[in-house]
Formats: sequence, structure tokens, C-alpha cells
Amino acid sequence: MKDKLLYEGKAKQVFTVADNSNLLVLSYKNDATAFNGEKKAEFQGKGRYNNLISAKVFEYLHQQGINSHFKEALNETEQLVEKTTIIPLEVVIRNVAAGSIVRRTGIEEKTIFDPPLVELFYKKDELGDPLINDDHALLLTDATETDLTKIKKMALQVNEQLQAFFKEINLQLVDFKLEFGRNASGEIVLSDEVSPDTCRLWDIATGEKMDKDVFREDLGDLVTVYDHILSRLEAKQ
Amino acid sequence: MKDKLLYEGKAKQVFTVADNSNLLVLSYKNDATAFNGEKKAEFQGKGRYNNLISAKVFEYLHQQGINSHFKEALNETEQLVEKTTIIPLEVVIRNVAAGSIVRRTGIEEKTIFDPPLVELFYKKDELGDPLINDDHALLLTDATETDLTKIKKMALQVNEQLQAFFKEINLQLVDFKLEFGRNASGEIVLSDEVSPDTCRLWDIATGEKMDKDVFREDLGDLVTVYDHILSRLEAKQ
Repeated sequence: MKDKLLYEGKAKQVFTVADNSNLLVLSYKNDATAFNGEKKAEFQGKGRYNNLISAKVFEYLHQQGINSHFKEALNETEQLVEKTTIIPLEVVIRNVAAGSIVRRTGIEEKTIFDPPLVELFYKKDELGDPLINDDHALLLTDATETDLTKIKKMALQVNEQLQAFFKEINLQLVDFKLEFGRNASGEIVLSDEVSPDTCRLWDIATGEKMDKDVFREDLGDLVTVYDHILSRLEAKQ
Repeated sequence: MKDKLLYEGKAKQVFTVADNSNLLVLSYKNDATAFNGEKKAEFQGKGRYNNLISAKVFEYLHQQGINSHFKEALNETEQLVEKTTIIPLEVVIRNVAAGSIVRRTGIEEKTIFDPPLVELFYKKDELGDPLINDDHALLLTDATETDLTKIKKMALQVNEQLQAFFKEINLQLVDFKLEFGRNASGEIVLSDEVSPDTCRLWDIATGEKMDKDVFREDLGDLVTVYDHILSRLEAKQ
């Protein structure tokens, strides 16, 4: 089904699909990177976990009426998605203070954000994906004010849904990063992935970190943690 | 008139006023600092220039109906101001791309911003005054959404007025930083200073930098440049 390698990112390869220019195949890699690529490692099986977890998340979001690029998981490490033109924004939603916001603003770790905090980062590796404000986003991307309003609204809806989704498997959704793209009809849809690589997830019972922070902070074996998440998701159904 | 030293910042000392708790005396120092205090020097006469230039700017803004803390210049290096509680935001207005925005976002130097770009920074030395968005500002300060809207509107009005003011002395207002405070009646007024320390000013005829960038980038003698600005302002009247 997959045809030519179109693009290779830090976590995924993107392939064209033979005979259908509106579709792409995402192939999840075993590489883990953190701190804008400064820390790198490979974990056997990681690609499989992110592919299967992300597929479950997108299936759930689809049921909840959230439009995304996701079509179906094709196999253990690949999924079929609608081709979108990515808007170069990383939309971060924070329910609890952790990570960069603590370092940047001095807000105390574990502070609850109610309402959730929305942040935009400019997706540009060579600049280290800097935080930007709405005015910057209008200058740096083709998003209009209406688009930004829609993107933020969708991100907050995804947050509501994902909080409930992860709570069912005893995980607190601390924060997460989303990307959005435009499909062939020009509609803005949720794109990229939603996985323990892009979410901070804390075990509700123990407070344990169950996401890429395990790799960032050398807290244990990443693959074991991702395996726990997938097992919990499979047990839930 | 001035009583006790209340606070000493990088560029000014702040004194209480005997018998009037609603007033303060600002005493401009000869120190120059850049890059969050990493580069430092003292320039004989600098305090005088900033005091006299800032006084002229505030007098002009007052005539244009902009409410500020400024009362009057008391002498060569000191001015009397209304006491305000500073909102810990640095409000930056950019008409042309220069300085940090180029490094942060990759926007090409000298790009014209039309409409002008508004940026908020969290005034916190130990964090290096980080860029923040509106949601952060609401969390980190006591400003409400209404306050933020008012502050941005005032900053853009000040920009209109200052562009005209500096054009009359053949200077292009590239960008500048404002601070706002609340006075005793709770009203938000323009505070701090407006000087070649807080504005980027380029000579319209020659393109020469006539502001603190002369110090930041070692382009020449800072005091000579500030003297030119004051002379032009005095000649204009």
C-alpha cells in the first residue's frame, strides 16, 4: 500500500499511498528524542506502542465527534491517515503545571490550571520550537484569526475527551501537544499523533510518570511503561 | 523633596517623597545594562539624557491625552511621578523586525509589521523576562482580560503618538517597551520610562542606530548618540 517516503521526522516516517494522493501512511519509529533532539535513543518496540496507542486515541476521538486525519491502523507500526498540510503550530494544553512552563514562568510544579492553559509554539526545529503568541502565529503561519479560534476550541474539546479517556485507565492527563492540518477540502482537522510521546500522563493512584518523561529524566524503562498503557487500554475494552 | 530609597533597579533609583505617599522621585542612573544584565557599563551623563528625554516624551504623551505616572522633571537626573503599583509586564510594540524577534522567530530583520506587533514579557529578572501569551499574563499578574485589552490598546495609541513624535526629529520608531501601573485610584496608567534605553530608534536619513543598541553592539559612543537625540528634541521646540 505505501509507496514513496515523503518525509522522515524524529518519530515517524511519512509515505505516499499508491493510487490515492489524499492518503498517507505514517510509520512509527523506535527512536526517542527529547530537548529538541539533544537527547536521543532507540527503544525496540516503541514505534509499535505509539502506533497502537495513538490509533486507539484517534478512534475514541472520532467516536466523540472530533475530526482528525486518522483512518485506520494498518499493522503494528503503521497507520493510514488523510493527507493534510500541517499548520506549523504545536498547540499545548496544560491541566497541571509540569515541564517547561515551570522553568519558563516560575509557576509552581503541580499547580492546577482551571481553565486549562493554552500555549502555541512555532514548529520549527532550527529555532527550537519557540513559544509564540497569537499575533506571531498569524504572521508565521497561514492561519487566520478564525482558524486560531477554531484550533484552540478543538484543542480544548480534545482535552475534555482525553481527560475522561485516560481517567478510565487510571491516568491523569497533565498536558499534551497537538498538531492540526488542512485536508484536501480545506477543513482544519486534528493531525499528527496522540501518544505517551506527546502527552504527560501520571498514574492517578501512585503519581508515577507514565510518558516520555521516563526517558527525559531517566526514570526507568520506557517500553515497560508504554506497554502498561497499551495493556490498560486493551483491558478497558 | 525625596526621602527614603524605596527600590533600586538597573537604570533608576526610586525614592519616597516626604509628606506625600502618592508620589515618588525617580533618579536616573548612569548605568547601562543589556542581555538581562550580562553586559554592564557606566556612562557619565547617561542618567541626565534619559531623564530629560523621557520627561519630554511623557509631556508630549500627556498633551495627546495619554494618562501616565509622570508629573515633572525636578532637575537634570530626577523626575517626580505618581506612585503606581507596577503590573509585572513588559509590553513591547514592534513596527519593524529587529533584535530578539529575529532570533526567536526567524522573521527577517527590517520586516514591516502592519499592524504593529504586540508582545508581552513577564517582568521577572531571575527568569530573564520571558515572552508570555495572554493566558500566562492572566495567571502571572493581577491583570484581568479587560485590563489586558486596555493595556494593549493604550500601548498601540502610544505607538501612534510616538511614531509621529520621533518622525519630527528624523527618527524611525522601530520598537519599544512600555510598563503600566495602577495608581492610587486603581486606574491603569503608563509608567516607567520612554527613552533611547527602551526604544529602538533609527535615523531616517542614514539608517544609523540611535539607541541602546549602540551599547549592545558596540557601535560607538552611547552618550554622543543620546546627546544628539536630546539636541534634536530641544531644537524642535
